[in-house]
Amino acid sequence: MENFTFYNPTKIIFGRNTQHEVGQEIIKYGKKVLLHYGGGSIKKSGLYDEVMTSLKNSNLEVYELGGVVPNPLLSLVNEGINLCLEKQIDFILAVGGGSVIDSAKAIAGGVKYEGDIWDCYSKGVTLSDALPYGTILTLPATGTEMNFRSVITKDDTLEKRGASFPNPTFSILNAELCATLPNYQVANGIVDMLAHLFERYFTNTKNVDITDRQIEAVMKSIIELGVDVYQDPSDYDKYAQIMWAGTIAHNYSLCVGRETDWATHQIEHELSGMYNVAHGAGLAVLFPNWMKYVYHHDLDRFVQFATRVMNVEPDFFNPEKTALKGIEAVITFYKKLNMPLTLKALGIDEKRIDELALLSTRNNTIKQGNFVKLDTEDIKQILLLSCAGD
Amino acid sequence: MENFTFYNPTKIIFGRNTQHEVGQEIIKYGKKVLLHYGGGSIKKSGLYDEVMTSLKNSNLEVYELGGVVPNPLLSLVNEGINLCLEKQIDFILAVGGGSVIDSAKAIAGGVKYEGDIWDCYSKGVTLSDALPYGTILTLPATGTEMNFRSVITKDDTLEKRGASFPNPTFSILNAELCATLPNYQVANGIVDMLAHLFERYFTNTKNVDITDRQIEAVMKSIIELGVDVYQDPSDYDKYAQIMWAGTIAHNYSLCVGRETDWATHQIEHELSGMYNVAHGAGLAVLFPNWMKYVYHHDLDRFVQFATRVMNVEPDFFNPEKTALKGIEAVITFYKKLNMPLTLKALGIDEKRIDELALLSTRNNTIKQGNFVKLDTEDIKQILLLSCAGD
Repeated sequence: MENFTFYNPTKIIFGRNTQHEVGQEIIKYGKKVLLHYGGGSIKKSGLYDEVMTSLKNSNLEVYELGGVVPNPLLSLVNEGINLCLEKQIDFILAVGGGSVIDSAKAIAGGVKYEGDIWDCYSKGVTLSDALPYGTILTLPATGTEMNFRSVITKDDTLEKRGASFPNPTFSILNAELCATLPNYQVANGIVDMLAHLFERYFTNTKNVDITDRQIEAVMKSIIELGVDVYQDPSDYDKYAQIMWAGTIAHNYSLCVGRETDWATHQIEHELSGMYNVAHGAGLAVLFPNWMKYVYHHDLDRFVQFATRVMNVEPDFFNPEKTALKGIEAVITFYKKLNMPLTLKALGIDEKRIDELALLSTRNNTIKQGNFVKLDTEDIKQILLLSCAGD
Repeated sequence: MENFTFYNPTKIIFGRNTQHEVGQEIIKYGKKVLLHYGGGSIKKSGLYDEVMTSLKNSNLEVYELGGVVPNPLLSLVNEGINLCLEKQIDFILAVGGGSVIDSAKAIAGGVKYEGDIWDCYSKGVTLSDALPYGTILTLPATGTEMNFRSVITKDDTLEKRGASFPNPTFSILNAELCATLPNYQVANGIVDMLAHLFERYFTNTKNVDITDRQIEAVMKSIIELGVDVYQDPSDYDKYAQIMWAGTIAHNYSLCVGRETDWATHQIEHELSGMYNVAHGAGLAVLFPNWMKYVYHHDLDRFVQFATRVMNVEPDFFNPEKTALKGIEAVITFYKKLNMPLTLKALGIDEKRIDELALLSTRNNTIKQGNFVKLDTEDIKQILLLSCAGD
């Protein structure tokens, strides 16, 4: 177990009807609030009206900035920063999925930063100060509602980069708000949260039995409940658990004292930057093939994963067979979620594999991952594996 | 899953040598620090000198208040409050186990409270403001280093009551500092942290599979590593995991959205108030007998516990046998820790059972617990069961 620091001051307000509490939470921080959202689905669902009522009931002065797109753009972030400065906004409220929240984080940071906010993404500048901001989550997936990370895409170059900011002040999580999500979006979210656990689970750090078991617990819950939630997002009792799983999968409580990987996420970022595929779908294609490429590195860990998480009966005379059955069980789970399993199914041309591999290593200048450090050739092999399959 | 609010802003600084960082953490909050500790074991171990060096290196002005006893006393709390007010202390640093930290919480709250601090314990007054305070934990057990609870005993009446305060600002956790703990204290701590998980696990709330599994993960780690740590507290790799288990067992992350019990803790508080027995030892006697008394209430849950946590092979034709084997396995675990298993072994007279049962229900005015609500007669039966055994 490695030394670590853990600090997560986001207040979680979880459960049915909690969106109506948003006004009384925000009024503690000031009078002027910027309501930040996406393409208007919150207007169709009625959530917009509920939020506005709560904000008005607390006598808040509301400004609006909609239009956040999946893979949120720097241009809108800058628009938000200017609006906050001009109107002297006290608090930003993000209502939506991970993209809206990531965009709000960047705006909150940008208001307090003298330079260009893209510095945080391109140069790794970390801000200790930001405008306070809160979230109402409508799509469980990225975990951004309880962490310090934000991913933004630069409009002109399509570079997709991550940065760190202060956590949300509060996040409101009500799985009732997810009842009408399209099944494909639900599935994408489930794949993403499971991937956040894979990135933590496959580690070289020794003496981390406790976090192994904690990660396994959450993975197992996602696998047990995920297909039912995909088929019926209105099943509150199950989606509430999946929603919480998504939050803790990426709130940094489950990776304390252990090295994490993130190669697959990095490759997927390049992939969805180049083709604008859904992040979850990209991960569903890549993760089993990453596993197939690296499992020899620590066969015991893959046997443990297969046995404890994927319910594979261990073949003690053939651990490799056990490990491979575990990976197959992951694919079977993705199939039940109707996820794409090959690059072709994602609409990606095999011919661009070399280019994608080079992008992933920033032209051979860095390796990706920690469990196994992957160079351009390694990533090419994983992408080739991702072309095969049914 | 019930609605819940979760907020835990304590910064955890975990790992080897982290005690040397204490000065630089405190200086963010002011110049004058009250160093609060127990009977002087930190002087023998050398920790006192290390802490003083770190505080001096950050140019902090240090005042001292030692003398905290197990089951910490209100009189010392009031002495601390007066000292803080007189010297205009900016920050309280608790160095020790749960007793020292609970005492520091009460002082921190009392400095900001106009009335008598005992109001918080006797009348349930909750304070939203307190002097900032931090901890260096030397005995993993109570979880108070990352929560809002404090238990104090009133000197004259020996009433032992709990209250809520703002969380510690930071807690420094270094299992190296536990290497020379007496084995008996190590065992008491392990029993206590496991009991915090039992109180959360045995619930009537439905649709909490995810927290079931998370609690199981931590219980399993404690059971797997606990005996080794008891026998050799200097095994850092294992004690670090147990230390973290103790923190998360009671930082309220594992009981989100579920009802918890706490009957056994309440009975044990009366018991250790009356006889001054170690809290862990009292819990070791009471918990298996509480389990034997209530398991019929939800046999399925006890079968799940036996199977998933205590590694009992389920007898599908005889679930009761499976459940009882699980309880026996808990007793076996306590035996390996050389814990007392009967009231007699604790030096408690059977004749005082009636009195103890009455005290536990405040003379028949309240019932204890939520999984099963226990009246005076129920508690008497559990205490009678606790007399038997080997």
